[in-house]
Amino acid sequence: MELQNLMARYAHLVVESGLHLKKGQPLLIHALLETAPFVRLVVREAYEAGASRVEVVWRDEETARMDYTYQPLDNWQQVPAWQAALRNDMAKAGGAILTIDAADPEALTGVDPRKPAAWAKAMHRDCKPYYDGMDKGENIWCIIAAPSEKWAARIFPDLPAEEAVATLWQVIGKLMRLDAEDPSAAWEAHRRSFEERKAFLNGAQLDALHFTSASTGTDLTVGLPQGYIWAGGGAELQDGTPFFPNMPTEEIFCSPHWERADGVVHSSLPLCHNGEMVEDFSFTFRDGKVVDYTARVGKEVLARLLETDEGAVRLGECALIPKESPIAGTGLLFYNTLFDENAACHLALGAGFSECLEGGLEMDDDQLKAHGVNCSAVHMDFMFGTPDLSVTGIRKDGTQVPIFRDGSWVI
Amino acid sequence: MELQNLMARYAHLVVESGLHLKKGQPLLIHALLETAPFVRLVVREAYEAGASRVEVVWRDEETARMDYTYQPLDNWQQVPAWQAALRNDMAKAGGAILTIDAADPEALTGVDPRKPAAWAKAMHRDCKPYYDGMDKGENIWCIIAAPSEKWAARIFPDLPAEEAVATLWQVIGKLMRLDAEDPSAAWEAHRRSFEERKAFLNGAQLDALHFTSASTGTDLTVGLPQGYIWAGGGAELQDGTPFFPNMPTEEIFCSPHWERADGVVHSSLPLCHNGEMVEDFSFTFRDGKVVDYTARVGKEVLARLLETDEGAVRLGECALIPKESPIAGTGLLFYNTLFDENAACHLALGAGFSECLEGGLEMDDDQLKAHGVNCSAVHMDFMFGTPDLSVTGIRKDGTQVPIFRDGSWVI
Repeated sequence: MELQNLMARYAHLVVESGLHLKKGQPLLIHALLETAPFVRLVVREAYEAGASRVEVVWRDEETARMDYTYQPLDNWQQVPAWQAALRNDMAKAGGAILTIDAADPEALTGVDPRKPAAWAKAMHRDCKPYYDGMDKGENIWCIIAAPSEKWAARIFPDLPAEEAVATLWQVIGKLMRLDAEDPSAAWEAHRRSFEERKAFLNGAQLDALHFTSASTGTDLTVGLPQGYIWAGGGAELQDGTPFFPNMPTEEIFCSPHWERADGVVHSSLPLCHNGEMVEDFSFTFRDGKVVDYTARVGKEVLARLLETDEGAVRLGECALIPKESPIAGTGLLFYNTLFDENAACHLALGAGFSECLEGGLEMDDDQLKAHGVNCSAVHMDFMFGTPDLSVTGIRKDGTQVPIFRDGSWVI
Repeated sequence: MELQNLMARYAHLVVESGLHLKKGQPLLIHALLETAPFVRLVVREAYEAGASRVEVVWRDEETARMDYTYQPLDNWQQVPAWQAALRNDMAKAGGAILTIDAADPEALTGVDPRKPAAWAKAMHRDCKPYYDGMDKGENIWCIIAAPSEKWAARIFPDLPAEEAVATLWQVIGKLMRLDAEDPSAAWEAHRRSFEERKAFLNGAQLDALHFTSASTGTDLTVGLPQGYIWAGGGAELQDGTPFFPNMPTEEIFCSPHWERADGVVHSSLPLCHNGEMVEDFSFTFRDGKVVDYTARVGKEVLARLLETDEGAVRLGECALIPKESPIAGTGLLFYNTLFDENAACHLALGAGFSECLEGGLEMDDDQLKAHGVNCSAVHMDFMFGTPDLSVTGIRKDGTQVPIFRDGSWVI
């Protein structure tokens, strides 16, 4: 597809289906400088859809890296008032929040990782209304991606810069179903395809999930909280407005019980955390807690991540993606969670989802934890799905419910 | 000069001489997206000089234009809390403020001019600590320019885009004295060259200035307030820290008495206001107030400008620039006040300068007005200098002091 046409269709899809933007609603966009040509199309689509105002928070990775390099750790432990006001006021005004990810996977390589970690913690504390608005179904949020030169170069290291970017645009266009006659209608069909399996899992009264993969050695049992909810595909605000938190999305996910995980899980794809790579790693859990971990590359990255807070050593998410996922079908490693997490089954250390628990949207952190949903300043996905993965549901009475066999759905 | 070298010398000069940045001081930068490669050099120089943090407020002219187009007038009548906090907190923290101008002169053509006017008014009201910090000698501020494609295309309409930008870089490099062995030393020498004339004018006990130009028909007498101060070249904070508010700068200026201007003044260069052109215009003053005006092009632009507030129809600045100015020497019309105001003598309608009155830095608006210095939300420079301009100082006793003859200094 011709690039200008692809970008225009993409911008329209994001505003219409991703954000479901309503007349009179404000919109906050986070974007890298280099995605400006696409951002402008999104801003125009938003205004044409009736946005009351659009604020673009531009980010430059090079100056961001300088900020982290030159500013002392102390500076990262609180959020300047204006940055908190920008986000919190937007949430209170009912704004929608769009993040256009194009990050260079290595943007922060070499930066003292305590700084971005401190910043993430400070943001979650000082911008609580903003995060709560998204977590509790009051504000629409949507994360999408657009190519940048550095990101494209990482995925296609053998292509010239311009060709790498053009190729990534075409890949994204395909994964975003922009070649469908009506991409928004294609996404609605996609949304419905998730509903049957979510309904089955939500009605199955499972007490735990058992994962096994002979090829990697994974053998892990994860408990589910009472009143668990499987989510995925599309989401809904509390008032019923549909939106897509992630585009693309191929996963059905829940929040496992933070006190109930036992066994070992081995990674099946590398992990890129704040620009640092972790490869061939495993976690051993006992009573929900990581008690041991290994990594061929980047063990120290895991060490720091696990130290963030007490929630960082426990699970917050379990997501099921069949090996037929179109993202797996590209055969690419994207070095970007938005894509890679949709290529294979994954777990996440750190924060769970209030939307994945009955009544969770009305609960505060203490209540969520009391009901089994983990809380943390971090949320780090890692892929463990393999073509030979089995997933079996276990009811309280011990009966088993086959869910995945050989990496594919059997429900 | 090779571009990368030119930009590096420029960034160093701006941080060292323009901003006189001190260790531990924060810096706020306003810049257009397309100047990012230069901005990054400035940010690095600032951190190397010890900046405690650098905030870059990126602006995109295309989305800014959409904001003005789609958002109703009401939205422009108050500044969002975060925008005010960003500026006011930076001022209170003693931050320096750098504006890197690269504006497309036509960026806002066709936009309802009441919107930018309302915004300017709201900014001055809601960001008062920020503007006061700069006006009252507490915060260093510096305005410089960097090429953008659209701006360069306006100056060099016959050159291909890339060549126009490259040419403008070289012109700016020359006007910024970057070809000097030590540009900062060259700027210190430039600063000293202003001091003698400022001392003469400040000691001359003038009561008024009389401007005549046979070629345009200008014949205007402008009163000076008691305790007037001529400023120009470099400036100083109240604590004595030197800086350059404008780079380049070739002007010596004062604030005339807002109640005392009589006669007619004719423009000698076009004016570009918020992207709209005004050409071949004149103002007739009586008792300090514009009582008539003409314009061959853009009279309605002047009409709206004069309606902003009661200070907009009175003078706030009178600046003297000899015809030998290197900016005049380029023979270019820059469509940008920072340059064009340094090409010829000019006046400004709107706000005067508290620094141009003895004790003015400690005065509030009412006190400034009581002493003769104009107050307004606007400050609009227009050029009236010609090669045959005479400027004569008049003392209270009627004696005359020749200042300019045939467009050149005679003091």
